[in-house]
Amino acid sequence: MARALRLAERGRYTAHPNPMVGCVLVNEDQVVGEGFHAKTGEAHAEVHALRAAGERARGATAYVTLEPCAHHGKTPPCSNALIEAGVSKVIVAMRDPFVTDGKRGLQILADAGISVDVGLMQSAATALNRGFVNRVTLQRPWVRVKLAASIDGAIAMASGESQWITGAAARADVQRLRACSGAVMTGIGTVLADDPSLNVRAADIETGGLQPLRVVIDSRLRMPLAASMLALPGRTLICCTGSPDARDFKKTNAEVVSFSAHDGRVDVDAVLQELAARGVNDVLVEAGPGLAGHCLERGLVDELVIYQAPSVLGSQTIRMFDTPAMTSLADRKSLTITDVRRIGSDTRITAAFNKSE
Amino acid sequence: MARALRLAERGRYTAHPNPMVGCVLVNEDQVVGEGFHAKTGEAHAEVHALRAAGERARGATAYVTLEPCAHHGKTPPCSNALIEAGVSKVIVAMRDPFVTDGKRGLQILADAGISVDVGLMQSAATALNRGFVNRVTLQRPWVRVKLAASIDGAIAMASGESQWITGAAARADVQRLRACSGAVMTGIGTVLADDPSLNVRAADIETGGLQPLRVVIDSRLRMPLAASMLALPGRTLICCTGSPDARDFKKTNAEVVSFSAHDGRVDVDAVLQELAARGVNDVLVEAGPGLAGHCLERGLVDELVIYQAPSVLGSQTIRMFDTPAMTSLADRKSLTITDVRRIGSDTRITAAFNKSE
Repeated sequence: MARALRLAERGRYTAHPNPMVGCVLVNEDQVVGEGFHAKTGEAHAEVHALRAAGERARGATAYVTLEPCAHHGKTPPCSNALIEAGVSKVIVAMRDPFVTDGKRGLQILADAGISVDVGLMQSAATALNRGFVNRVTLQRPWVRVKLAASIDGAIAMASGESQWITGAAARADVQRLRACSGAVMTGIGTVLADDPSLNVRAADIETGGLQPLRVVIDSRLRMPLAASMLALPGRTLICCTGSPDARDFKKTNAEVVSFSAHDGRVDVDAVLQELAARGVNDVLVEAGPGLAGHCLERGLVDELVIYQAPSVLGSQTIRMFDTPAMTSLADRKSLTITDVRRIGSDTRITAAFNKSE
Repeated sequence: MARALRLAERGRYTAHPNPMVGCVLVNEDQVVGEGFHAKTGEAHAEVHALRAAGERARGATAYVTLEPCAHHGKTPPCSNALIEAGVSKVIVAMRDPFVTDGKRGLQILADAGISVDVGLMQSAATALNRGFVNRVTLQRPWVRVKLAASIDGAIAMASGESQWITGAAARADVQRLRACSGAVMTGIGTVLADDPSLNVRAADIETGGLQPLRVVIDSRLRMPLAASMLALPGRTLICCTGSPDARDFKKTNAEVVSFSAHDGRVDVDAVLQELAARGVNDVLVEAGPGLAGHCLERGLVDELVIYQAPSVLGSQTIRMFDTPAMTSLADRKSLTITDVRRIGSDTRITAAFNKSE
């Protein structure tokens, strides 16, 4: 199963909005076939593994990171394929949270007399597809805020100067974060100040042509038609409120959508629901303290990824989050550190917000 | 030598102002004696090791973390003791930076026909006694700023509320930092706001009765006579400017010393020199952003120890350093991370300031 999970990860940049899935077929202690799901519309992991195994699939045990599908979607159901190939046992890491018509792959397999087992390395499998799980079960993507900061928590000088606090390796790592996200979100303030591209442009990342949807929170539709991202491959979603005149954007890659307001600004929660409805599993927020702080105060952030530079910038600087409503220690947002590692000369800290608070 | 260094460390809380020294005597591949320097005025590491070895010191090799002394101080010179015991070889990690009368222990040993070798694990030995080395060579102690902060760099809420950002394990660790420091420095602002004790009070730390000198930077002598630290064992040094009336402090454990002014405040550099002259190897700064930022801007800080809590406190907070003069990225103070470890649920980051800038 560990191998199946590693295979699944190979779909990290390409499988979404589908989940990442890996499958290993073992017959008489030999791996006879393996596969992973590479891209929506293409064959599922199980089909790749069955093809590789050929006749040796008969009597084999299949290790699959996600319950095989039961539905006729863009590809035929994998449960049937496993049955037809004569697999004798199926071990599944986690159930599929996405069950449309009540039929479960596991039930179909069991009904066909195949031995099924669920739960091996379940937490690793769930973590791998937490964006997909969030979207399917909560109708919300997994929201990750990325920050580049000094060790004393500054993301820029007060003048706005921020290029570069972190090093080239950290910035390259951000490309990977973007590539595994269905959408990258920022605020109009960042667009006006920095004119960011928010695209995946690293030569060593193969996304199969996928670019994350660029999402700009822009209540009053101040987005300039000359913004760099509007001229790049991929789509841009401009989120505003009210009924603005969006005719100018017809010629660009951008779509302008009006959302309900929350305290006079775009209701980000509504935006996230819209993104989930559009099949976005993971949202990467690369924003200034205004939008990041707003998301934090509203409890909309699942995870923080901080690239922490080994430097002190001091007090004449801009902080990570603007949080006017957090005034006492009781308001603090507590985290669980899930990963700390060195990226070039910077430290990447990954932490999940504790939801029980 | 690795064992000798570990032995030396056992003097961490008690040896200062003397350096930590360890010694291991090896005869025919057997450890025949070992020792460390525990306390000023008591026997040096070599003497302990020679006593333990007895006759088996004859023909032995001595591994010593610091060049054996040549001077008649509170104890007789160790070089002579090694010669008299018949040691045949002496391997030393680092030379002694403290040479009073021009005579070197290594020279005395070599003159007596003993084989001497210098440099084994030298960098570890130097790091172990960097406070002592700083004091002897630069007439300045090693200055370490300790901070307890959230992951977004806040040390308190704007209201001053800060108890507690970090956990009990981190606070216990601070006790160890204090215990290996000759002085703990703070500003009058912190005294007036928090009335800290700044003493070592952990039952599991044996300092042999030593307490770090408490140093309060207090330009206008606003120190209250009722301050907690004035009633505790150990001494307090109140650093002011001008010629204040300090008669009231005669009845306390405090000494009031007037220093030259620097931009209208106490010249902290002069205070550090005074501390070195008093035999302080290591200063721990536990201060608010005013004093910490001032020390940072003046380049007086050697090391940062941040206890980073897994929480976000947001913008309505106080930052680590108040640094009005640092206004562009070029003013940043860059660090080399030397250690990162988990202390309870917090992360302790130790970093040295890069001096080349």
